[in-house]
Amino acid sequence: MYRSHNCGALRIDHVGQEVTLSGWVQIGRDLGGMTFVDLRDRYGITQLAFNMDDNADLCEQARKLGREFVIKVTGIVNERQSKNANRPTGDIEIKVSHLEVLNASKTPPFTIENETDGGDDIRMKYRYLDIRRNPVKENLIFRSNLAIETRKYLAGEGFIEVETPNLIKSTPEGARDFVVPSRMNANQFYALPQSPQTFKQLLMVAGMDKYFQIVKCFRDEDLRADRQPEFTQIDCEMAFVTREDVLNTFEGLTKHLFSTVKNITLDDFPKMSYDEAMRRFGSDKPDLRFDMEFIYLNEQLKGKDFVVFDGAENIIGIVVKGIADEYSNKDLKKLTEWVQRPQIGAKGLVYVKHHADDTIKSTIGKFFSEEELRSVLSHCGAEKGDTLFVLCGETEKTRKQLNELRLEMGRRLGLMKEGDFKPLWVIDFPLLEWDEESERFHAMHHPFTSPKAEDEERMLNGDHETMKSLRADAYDLVINGSEIGGGSIRIHDRELQSKNLDLLGFSKEEAEAQFGFLLGAFEYGAPPHGGIAFGFDRLCAVLNGQSSIRDFIAFPKNNQGRDIMIDAPSPIDDEQLTELRLDLVKQEE
Amino acid sequence: MYRSHNCGALRIDHVGQEVTLSGWVQIGRDLGGMTFVDLRDRYGITQLAFNMDDNADLCEQARKLGREFVIKVTGIVNERQSKNANRPTGDIEIKVSHLEVLNASKTPPFTIENETDGGDDIRMKYRYLDIRRNPVKENLIFRSNLAIETRKYLAGEGFIEVETPNLIKSTPEGARDFVVPSRMNANQFYALPQSPQTFKQLLMVAGMDKYFQIVKCFRDEDLRADRQPEFTQIDCEMAFVTREDVLNTFEGLTKHLFSTVKNITLDDFPKMSYDEAMRRFGSDKPDLRFDMEFIYLNEQLKGKDFVVFDGAENIIGIVVKGIADEYSNKDLKKLTEWVQRPQIGAKGLVYVKHHADDTIKSTIGKFFSEEELRSVLSHCGAEKGDTLFVLCGETEKTRKQLNELRLEMGRRLGLMKEGDFKPLWVIDFPLLEWDEESERFHAMHHPFTSPKAEDEERMLNGDHETMKSLRADAYDLVINGSEIGGGSIRIHDRELQSKNLDLLGFSKEEAEAQFGFLLGAFEYGAPPHGGIAFGFDRLCAVLNGQSSIRDFIAFPKNNQGRDIMIDAPSPIDDEQLTELRLDLVKQEE
Repeated sequence: MYRSHNCGALRIDHVGQEVTLSGWVQIGRDLGGMTFVDLRDRYGITQLAFNMDDNADLCEQARKLGREFVIKVTGIVNERQSKNANRPTGDIEIKVSHLEVLNASKTPPFTIENETDGGDDIRMKYRYLDIRRNPVKENLIFRSNLAIETRKYLAGEGFIEVETPNLIKSTPEGARDFVVPSRMNANQFYALPQSPQTFKQLLMVAGMDKYFQIVKCFRDEDLRADRQPEFTQIDCEMAFVTREDVLNTFEGLTKHLFSTVKNITLDDFPKMSYDEAMRRFGSDKPDLRFDMEFIYLNEQLKGKDFVVFDGAENIIGIVVKGIADEYSNKDLKKLTEWVQRPQIGAKGLVYVKHHADDTIKSTIGKFFSEEELRSVLSHCGAEKGDTLFVLCGETEKTRKQLNELRLEMGRRLGLMKEGDFKPLWVIDFPLLEWDEESERFHAMHHPFTSPKAEDEERMLNGDHETMKSLRADAYDLVINGSEIGGGSIRIHDRELQSKNLDLLGFSKEEAEAQFGFLLGAFEYGAPPHGGIAFGFDRLCAVLNGQSSIRDFIAFPKNNQGRDIMIDAPSPIDDEQLTELRLDLVKQEE
Repeated sequence: MYRSHNCGALRIDHVGQEVTLSGWVQIGRDLGGMTFVDLRDRYGITQLAFNMDDNADLCEQARKLGREFVIKVTGIVNERQSKNANRPTGDIEIKVSHLEVLNASKTPPFTIENETDGGDDIRMKYRYLDIRRNPVKENLIFRSNLAIETRKYLAGEGFIEVETPNLIKSTPEGARDFVVPSRMNANQFYALPQSPQTFKQLLMVAGMDKYFQIVKCFRDEDLRADRQPEFTQIDCEMAFVTREDVLNTFEGLTKHLFSTVKNITLDDFPKMSYDEAMRRFGSDKPDLRFDMEFIYLNEQLKGKDFVVFDGAENIIGIVVKGIADEYSNKDLKKLTEWVQRPQIGAKGLVYVKHHADDTIKSTIGKFFSEEELRSVLSHCGAEKGDTLFVLCGETEKTRKQLNELRLEMGRRLGLMKEGDFKPLWVIDFPLLEWDEESERFHAMHHPFTSPKAEDEERMLNGDHETMKSLRADAYDLVINGSEIGGGSIRIHDRELQSKNLDLLGFSKEEAEAQFGFLLGAFEYGAPPHGGIAFGFDRLCAVLNGQSSIRDFIAFPKNNQGRDIMIDAPSPIDDEQLTELRLDLVKQEE
């Protein structure tokens, strides 16, 4: 037996008992006659005490223990002289009578502490040591709990978890598919699923009614800072439902998760159309923890002979509270440079400062009288101390730029408060996006998304321009500016699905080759259905107020898609290649 | 709204209520003035009634509904004239006032009934229709419930579910790895995991203490009748445990599953060593639902000048109860031919029949007196009516052959009773198997399995012959002759692990290249640990007394590894190949 208790279990009630503990040496302290060792496992830390007077040999042994040695000790639980109120086991210590080293340890390459001295790369290489640190360990336990509560809720709602296959069909559409050569089927490939989309729709055709799965998905794409080639979704689909049914179910799930794992009660989630979100915040995932709503100023600012404004499609402002006296000219110059960076791309930044002493300062003082500026400030609801920032130009671009500025000011002013959660349903997305470059439509959500019922007729019979105005019965859940997930009511009619694939540029043959099985299924009694998928990694991070999903993945890949701990991907044997009937095309120097 | 209730919900208490139902048309029956339609969904079947006198139009509409049409109806719940006691909704029917066809259906290619007229191939091609059938649907729901109860139990025991990566490292050892070319890392490949073995061991080094995961695994191998290229495991690992800790935990899990999903209380599981199982049943997964234990007969049957016996290493028999008068000479001849088939490979079959009238008949009457035969029968515990079957030859082969005969007789006599469950822990497997052909050792379990503690010293210092006798601290759970899963206490010492890899024929360089990350981890305080994995698909099948795992997988592949519904695997675009820097080697004609 390696232990009678774990290292987080012992309390004052256990005093006098003989116990056996196993764990890792966190730290040792020699105090002349006494040696103390903190013994750590997943559950906590317990202090071990060795007394030179009682057993010099044992005490000597204890002094030789290095950090991260794995040991087993037996001893009596004693009440501590000086208690540690910060530790659940802080009232007691173990007076050790027997010590066994189960395994030695080299000195770890970084400290196993909440705040470590290890950089990202070294921690990833030795991820098995990194996970011993509380913050990482707690993240993984949190994730496990979140999965448990998700399953509990969905099973309670009558959902059946069905495993869909990982070895599926590659589609030319799937430029980002990982493919898997088949040994048994020469020169043929499986693909790893980017999502179980078609399978979950088939499960609805199959009458499973309510499906869910917490499932790995795969995407072979250039990895932005916070993407992973393999990621996890809470994936769901329901039959005989309208949008409201789906939203109610997953609003319920989200509330359940916040309530059970965060002890936070959320109000009902507001809904906002895509158009409204773009108009008011310049983003389809607005962070509603703070205001700074967009104010449209064409009426106020055009026609005053300021060519920049007069030539702009739209002039839009936001009011930032309380910074007028705080932000110096130099600060504002820097902020202007910030919005002019290529990532943002604004031409310049107009501001109107309303100082606490009631004076006004502005970059456009030359073109507007003080009275006019005061009138604009008043129109915008700006008060003494506030600053109005204005951007202008082509509407879509300006909105995007101002969204960035709004978020930056929110960050700077600490308005994205930790522990404050503002969920939002964004609904009524466009069905199709026209891509000028390739001169074709792209599906804003995916090719199986249904237009809103009132747009079906226009979709089947409308002209090209009509297609641009079609709305999808699609929805996203946004929390604090992060997209947690999204979904849609699906097409369940073969004709409508064919029309959609046609609009997306699939020939009849391509559509048949790639989605024939789904189109075929639609001919055998496909029920109306819809669904949603939450990004599980993202959900873990957002619930913890953290920005990186990597911290919630046990063995993440870096942004070259590499696992640097196991050194993957890596070359494979010629023999393996031969069996797979593959030749490598060497990269040119 | 598509429905106020599902098709399994309505009872006599609902009579008088107006309800809305949606579902599939199971069948329609025209009875002159009345038309009845059975409406089906996941939850059940509800009868719809249309009356010609009340609404001729609606009744006409109902008569036009084809099988598997998807419809929505509104109407009043009525008490039925002739109740159907076999159906939970059998007391009521819906007097329909409104009918809407949500989707039409072509005539399905096979009947959607419990007993269908569709063959295997057509059912797989239209799996979405097959799943509408109760037996398949119930299997998937059963699987979902089994997963829920597994997670409930393990979470209750303090296990954390951690997702391990699917894109890992290919190892030359892994001849059966599926590989995945990386786009971002030219000419390099990931592999899909055959199991999360090394990652779960790293999680133990990481201090996660108790890990589990219900996880997809992948193996690219020739598929025997009941294997799948992707399959699911209940995968677990625990730190600071002995074998007993692991067995107790997973015996507890198994009992929990039987109790919750089958309402069966299992007794404590017996344990049997590998050697004993081979000796008594000629198999490391004996079916204990019936006896027919092996009886070793060298002493009784050698030295009587019967050269076949005298030249044999071992003579082994089984007693089959009650067939002496039932099995004719012709039957016995057929049985002899059965054991002589190449799959079994016995040279012949000796029998001694003890008829009910106390006469004896035997194939070896020429060599043995009746008295001698009676003495052998008595030694074997055979009674009137019983038959003794005897095989002889090289011990291992003879045991295997007799095991096949034992199982066949068990099947024929109906001794593998449905609903009877006999679990067994098989323990103390050999650590290494010597392969004569390749002249090297193979790991019987896997390269990370620990020898039993008492064998460690012999392993580190013994000679070649010693290695053949090493026992592993490995264990399998067997139920009714099926291996549900297995595991072992692992090596956690770098030196011992290196020695094991050395024995398995890995050079130092190969060991480092493939398992360096794990060997490295063992140097930073690896705790003693062990674990187990259950085959989840198999567990589902065995709990249902069924033999095919395919029936418990939503979208299985056939034995060419193909999904014939979606037609995968399939060729991929030249463009995709170029991006992956791969050339195909065409198969020669």
